[in-house]
Amino acid sequence: MSEPISAAAAADRLRGADRIVLLTHQYPDGDTLGCGFALCRALQKLGKTVRVECPDEIPEKYGYLSEGVPCPAFEPAFVCAVDVADARLLGPLEGVYAGRIALCIDHHGSNTGYARELVLRADYAAAAMVVREVIAALGVEPDRGIAECLYTGIATDTGCFKYSNTTAQTLRMAAEMLDFGVNNEMINRTMFDVKTRARVELERQALDSMRFYLEGRCAVMLVTNAMIARSGAGENDLEGLAPIPRQIEGVWVGVTMREKKDGSFKVSVRTGNHADASAICTRLGGGGHLRAAGCTLAGPAERAVEAVLDVVRRTLSAPSAGGR
Amino acid sequence: MSEPISAAAAADRLRGADRIVLLTHQYPDGDTLGCGFALCRALQKLGKTVRVECPDEIPEKYGYLSEGVPCPAFEPAFVCAVDVADARLLGPLEGVYAGRIALCIDHHGSNTGYARELVLRADYAAAAMVVREVIAALGVEPDRGIAECLYTGIATDTGCFKYSNTTAQTLRMAAEMLDFGVNNEMINRTMFDVKTRARVELERQALDSMRFYLEGRCAVMLVTNAMIARSGAGENDLEGLAPIPRQIEGVWVGVTMREKKDGSFKVSVRTGNHADASAICTRLGGGGHLRAAGCTLAGPAERAVEAVLDVVRRTLSAPSAGGR
Repeated sequence: MSEPISAAAAADRLRGADRIVLLTHQYPDGDTLGCGFALCRALQKLGKTVRVECPDEIPEKYGYLSEGVPCPAFEPAFVCAVDVADARLLGPLEGVYAGRIALCIDHHGSNTGYARELVLRADYAAAAMVVREVIAALGVEPDRGIAECLYTGIATDTGCFKYSNTTAQTLRMAAEMLDFGVNNEMINRTMFDVKTRARVELERQALDSMRFYLEGRCAVMLVTNAMIARSGAGENDLEGLAPIPRQIEGVWVGVTMREKKDGSFKVSVRTGNHADASAICTRLGGGGHLRAAGCTLAGPAERAVEAVLDVVRRTLSAPSAGGR
Repeated sequence: MSEPISAAAAADRLRGADRIVLLTHQYPDGDTLGCGFALCRALQKLGKTVRVECPDEIPEKYGYLSEGVPCPAFEPAFVCAVDVADARLLGPLEGVYAGRIALCIDHHGSNTGYARELVLRADYAAAAMVVREVIAALGVEPDRGIAECLYTGIATDTGCFKYSNTTAQTLRMAAEMLDFGVNNEMINRTMFDVKTRARVELERQALDSMRFYLEGRCAVMLVTNAMIARSGAGENDLEGLAPIPRQIEGVWVGVTMREKKDGSFKVSVRTGNHADASAICTRLGGGGHLRAAGCTLAGPAERAVEAVLDVVRRTLSAPSAGGR
């Protein structure tokens, strides 16, 4: 297990190190990338040789995070993971770095402790908030580039300050980043607003497919390969569909079923405080969090829907269901 | 024209007054209602006889704003409008109160100056931010009820801190409201996440109607009376459609045209930093903010669309258009 250390101690380790590699998790999001490039920029300001390594190609929309940041080649002497809860989330980089990760900076309560030392703030909405503290302890004043990385992490992990993990401290830290000159309009638009025409078309078709069950308590939305093909949607257009069914009034359990290339369905379940998404998906061979979980089911669609509804029906009729 | 006064002076006027009516604008939103009920709660704490009057029925989802707030009957001695840019926006209450509105608290640069005195902060994202300063000047410490009203105003007028009007000050004021115990999870879910089934159906049809012009720089979405009838949407389901066209990649000017009962169209224009929505709508006989403005045009739809496109085309080809 990792040795728990403070942000100040983490800054000490980084100050004493050089030839530093910063690792992000696979399927990178705004928080892991924002952490990586914020810390990379700060350490480069201190004259360190540093680079960010991401197990996947970085989606184009995150391009501004790394703008102007050198990515030097060198043999790493210090490896630090950011926003990575489990070494398995390093994907192809796990084999390269596992066992020699000196430091992890994270906010996931579920962190598996794979790093030698760990700065963990499970009460923080974003790992970028922990990185902000490490950068402060390094004595680096954020410039606009660093601030835009940190803002991106905070804004994306809170759904632009909408999710329940948003606290007064979250908002104040974001405000501080705006003081450093963050172009929040550009970032918010890029992260939260911009949809391709293909995505809009796919959403329209997916909404067409929506069906309601169990007196409107359960909504099921299908995203089939045929819809994806008709809309012209690419992989990046498929993100963020899962919350849609649960946003409908009266829906306790929102189910999004996305057909995979092999005809099976990736099922995403979202619930409010009336039902346990994790319990539903566990019964279907998957797992996840209380409000957001998933599983994979064999097709055809009708059979997969029936399997999900069967479990949802039993879950909603269980005595513990209900409440606010 | 109104006499411009400070928040402190407005607090003086209110402190010296009693039997106060607070007026909101028609088609009420979170900001005008948040302002009205925040100020009503604060003045009632000072022992004043106060009520909020709204020209329309208040949608159910805003119920928490007025929870526990008495609405006494009395002959008004002091009338104050909040977030009302133009006396015409008082709808049926214009005839009742126009000419005797002593004070207006607003953030619309386009305020017509119909009130005797005006506290105007056109640099503020929400009128609720101005009301926050008036309440501070009244010496009332916000309780949770007041803070939830003010938070609602700030959050709704910034699209949950997503729009470009969100500044460091906006975020810090929202943070202060969370310190006062605001249930931001409940408010954000109610304001930004929950959609009725009729609304989802209306969105689907509106997306169907979307057309692109000027090499994809302008998107126009129609919401006709026929669509509203087919979807079963009520008045409350019609809010918040205006941002949709501008969310599409490459769109600089997003136009939503909502048919009114009389067959004319309420036109909402949203722009990025490539175009001035207020300039576009002013040329069409309307007005508003730099990035969000509106006007009313006669039908049929095709003619209204042509009129808008004509102005948008000239605006986008003007030398000042462009930029990051």
